[in-house]
Amino acid sequence: MNKPLKFLLLVLVIASTTLEAQIDSIFHQKLLNITRTALQDTFGYNLLRELCRIGPRLSGSKNLVKAESFLLDKLETLGFDTVYTQTFTTNNWKRGDIARFEGNKGERFSVLALGGSNGTGGVIKAEVLEVGDFGELEKFKDAVKGKIVFYNFAFPQNVYESFESYGPAVNYRVNGAIRAAAYGAVGVLIRSIASNYDDVTHTGTLRYLDTIPKIPAGALGVQSAVRLSRLLAESKGSGKKQLFEFEMNCRTEEPAPVKNIIAEIRGTEFPGEVIVVGGHLDSWDVGEGAHDDGAGVVQSLEVLQLIKKTGFKPKRTVRMVLFANEENGLAGGRGYGKFAEEEPAIDIAAIESDRGGFTPRGFSVDATPEVLAKMEKWLPYFSRTGIEWFKKGGSGADISQIKNSKALIGYVPDSQRYFTYHHSANDLFTAVDHRELELGSAAITILTLLISEFGL
Amino acid sequence: MNKPLKFLLLVLVIASTTLEAQIDSIFHQKLLNITRTALQDTFGYNLLRELCRIGPRLSGSKNLVKAESFLLDKLETLGFDTVYTQTFTTNNWKRGDIARFEGNKGERFSVLALGGSNGTGGVIKAEVLEVGDFGELEKFKDAVKGKIVFYNFAFPQNVYESFESYGPAVNYRVNGAIRAAAYGAVGVLIRSIASNYDDVTHTGTLRYLDTIPKIPAGALGVQSAVRLSRLLAESKGSGKKQLFEFEMNCRTEEPAPVKNIIAEIRGTEFPGEVIVVGGHLDSWDVGEGAHDDGAGVVQSLEVLQLIKKTGFKPKRTVRMVLFANEENGLAGGRGYGKFAEEEPAIDIAAIESDRGGFTPRGFSVDATPEVLAKMEKWLPYFSRTGIEWFKKGGSGADISQIKNSKALIGYVPDSQRYFTYHHSANDLFTAVDHRELELGSAAITILTLLISEFGL
Repeated sequence: MNKPLKFLLLVLVIASTTLEAQIDSIFHQKLLNITRTALQDTFGYNLLRELCRIGPRLSGSKNLVKAESFLLDKLETLGFDTVYTQTFTTNNWKRGDIARFEGNKGERFSVLALGGSNGTGGVIKAEVLEVGDFGELEKFKDAVKGKIVFYNFAFPQNVYESFESYGPAVNYRVNGAIRAAAYGAVGVLIRSIASNYDDVTHTGTLRYLDTIPKIPAGALGVQSAVRLSRLLAESKGSGKKQLFEFEMNCRTEEPAPVKNIIAEIRGTEFPGEVIVVGGHLDSWDVGEGAHDDGAGVVQSLEVLQLIKKTGFKPKRTVRMVLFANEENGLAGGRGYGKFAEEEPAIDIAAIESDRGGFTPRGFSVDATPEVLAKMEKWLPYFSRTGIEWFKKGGSGADISQIKNSKALIGYVPDSQRYFTYHHSANDLFTAVDHRELELGSAAITILTLLISEFGL
Repeated sequence: MNKPLKFLLLVLVIASTTLEAQIDSIFHQKLLNITRTALQDTFGYNLLRELCRIGPRLSGSKNLVKAESFLLDKLETLGFDTVYTQTFTTNNWKRGDIARFEGNKGERFSVLALGGSNGTGGVIKAEVLEVGDFGELEKFKDAVKGKIVFYNFAFPQNVYESFESYGPAVNYRVNGAIRAAAYGAVGVLIRSIASNYDDVTHTGTLRYLDTIPKIPAGALGVQSAVRLSRLLAESKGSGKKQLFEFEMNCRTEEPAPVKNIIAEIRGTEFPGEVIVVGGHLDSWDVGEGAHDDGAGVVQSLEVLQLIKKTGFKPKRTVRMVLFANEENGLAGGRGYGKFAEEEPAIDIAAIESDRGGFTPRGFSVDATPEVLAKMEKWLPYFSRTGIEWFKKGGSGADISQIKNSKALIGYVPDSQRYFTYHHSANDLFTAVDHRELELGSAAITILTLLISEFGL
């Protein structure tokens, strides 16, 4: 190569690098503005306040219908390109107004029916058999018949990531009734799956099998579980049997309609490539469903709002999906998955927020190593959001139903307080910090815009 | 080199590398056990509950004396190598029982005296002049005389790191009275330095100069500040002047004694090299001083307790210092700094926890680039604690008085919620999450042990 040409090339390379760096820097500045705007205008936080005022949003409840209308009305005013709904039919469980568990000397315990549980059909009077885990259940299986089995499995506290503790504990909530009924139990109690030490009860779904009696099951508050355990030990020590009364009038009614709520900003270059951002609109019927998953709902909606407010024109279509019925049926997630498979557009990526409205930590990504590596290179764009990492891992229950996507992504905020609130009367708007929530909205928006800009 | 010798050397290198890796791995396992133990036994959390039950701990208060006795009694039972105290005399400010700010048509606002403020000496009746910042004060300086100046400077919400927002806001609390009095103001109000939107008032220290009248100063709750601003705008619009009443009976009494409380585990190899871990025992006189700085107190004590409980024998001396009087005088920090300069032992490093009991994020390190680089290599040891970084930066007010240390280190937890609680009635034990607090104890203990093991 002759020298002048070499020089010219060098100049071109420097110029293009500088230009690239400038564009990059402008883009980064625009992304930083997303975070500033989210923290400042608290659009999502104020929306969450209004949503929570409606009350909890269990599938089949009047509150859920109100919440659907509230959000559709709100979306009308926000001027996105498309707003539509998808309707499904799902099971319709009602808690009833009685949940009582008492010792026959008047000892009272706080108890709440597990979601989907049958009622007790009047009052069950029975002894209680306490077991620490399924291993102990097997050991004492011959003593189970006619009794209420009490799984006193404590939330493992010694693990950093609280979702890792949830895994082993939830096994007793989901499968405890089946396993105990197989040995002739007449009822089941679990220790609430909670990381704190109050006496608030935590519900959540259970499983039944058609081949095994569907016995009623409830959750005791952590302090009640500790007290019951002590009482049983004392009664064992004294050699006297103690009877308990267990009564719940929960029941399952006729299937009810539920809605996925969808809104889009159409892509300017690749409208057929869709990035889904979502959370689930339904909640359990206690508390206000603020962290689970009111936070995910308002953050998903705020992604669209922040894109619009800050003047971004995304190259790819950004689609908010507020999924129906995640808690007890997954009708919305399954229905959307089927729709996504059939529609001509391709969902290239999906991000779900369903781990509460806490300070951002990272993103858990179900994708090839190449896609994950690409995302890791984007980390500098997340400065001043709290996001520190991308890791290979699971995403979210709703979006897990989407096939053929290049990346299914779970937004991961700090998990330390989540199981203080989860599925309980503690899950209130007042338990959400506006800065933590808004940083989540910003982080998800930034990831959405990076995928929209650069593809996967 | 001949071949057999070369081979032998290779074998030796491999063997020693493997051995090193094994030791390293055993050490890492022992450090992981620190986190598990902290989360499981909640020693620090339970200690914080007891400490907070005493009430807030302002220098000169009976509560502080009770808290000192409580902790000294507790330390007696824990069997550390040395427990001793250092006594200093410091100023003794009392809030009194009156703090009132009202419009003359009965409009009421929540108000709290700033720490160290003089009382109003009866009722001040005056107009209020609102300014957004010191720039506006200069602009309207000719209108200040005889009025109460109201600095309505809002906490900057659009910044990720809330301590960055505190900086500009605190300027009005610290210097507002001096600046306004210089132009003839008779009183000062600030908008509480708070990151949330409730009406709880936040106190904190102010400065006076002997050359300028020492006018009384208070903080309005954020909602009260917003209401006052609206009222002033309305009154301006109507062209009518409105008078306000301002009354506080706070005062400064005779100097009072305060104590630094110190406990040590002596180093097995280098007892003359000391690693200080500390927080401050005093607090403002509202709330319970739970995050500020009960958290730092119990975390510092828990460092010693975790080292002992998990069977570590630190090579270097680990010294807990519970500093006196950080909030309004820094007598403890200054006194300790002097002591450290004079004693034969060397404080090679000091770690302060004074940013609340939230989930760990990193360490802010005042040290040479070499020392910082050494610490950064330790990051893998902090897996499963929440710690993600070491950064060059400031440490803490108390330890900043230590000279000639190789590293002054500030423990940095998540900062999003700190200014919801800081210096206010919101700063209660119930605002602390046990998992977040204990992870902090674990992270500080791990850093202490790494410095003890490897030096700096």
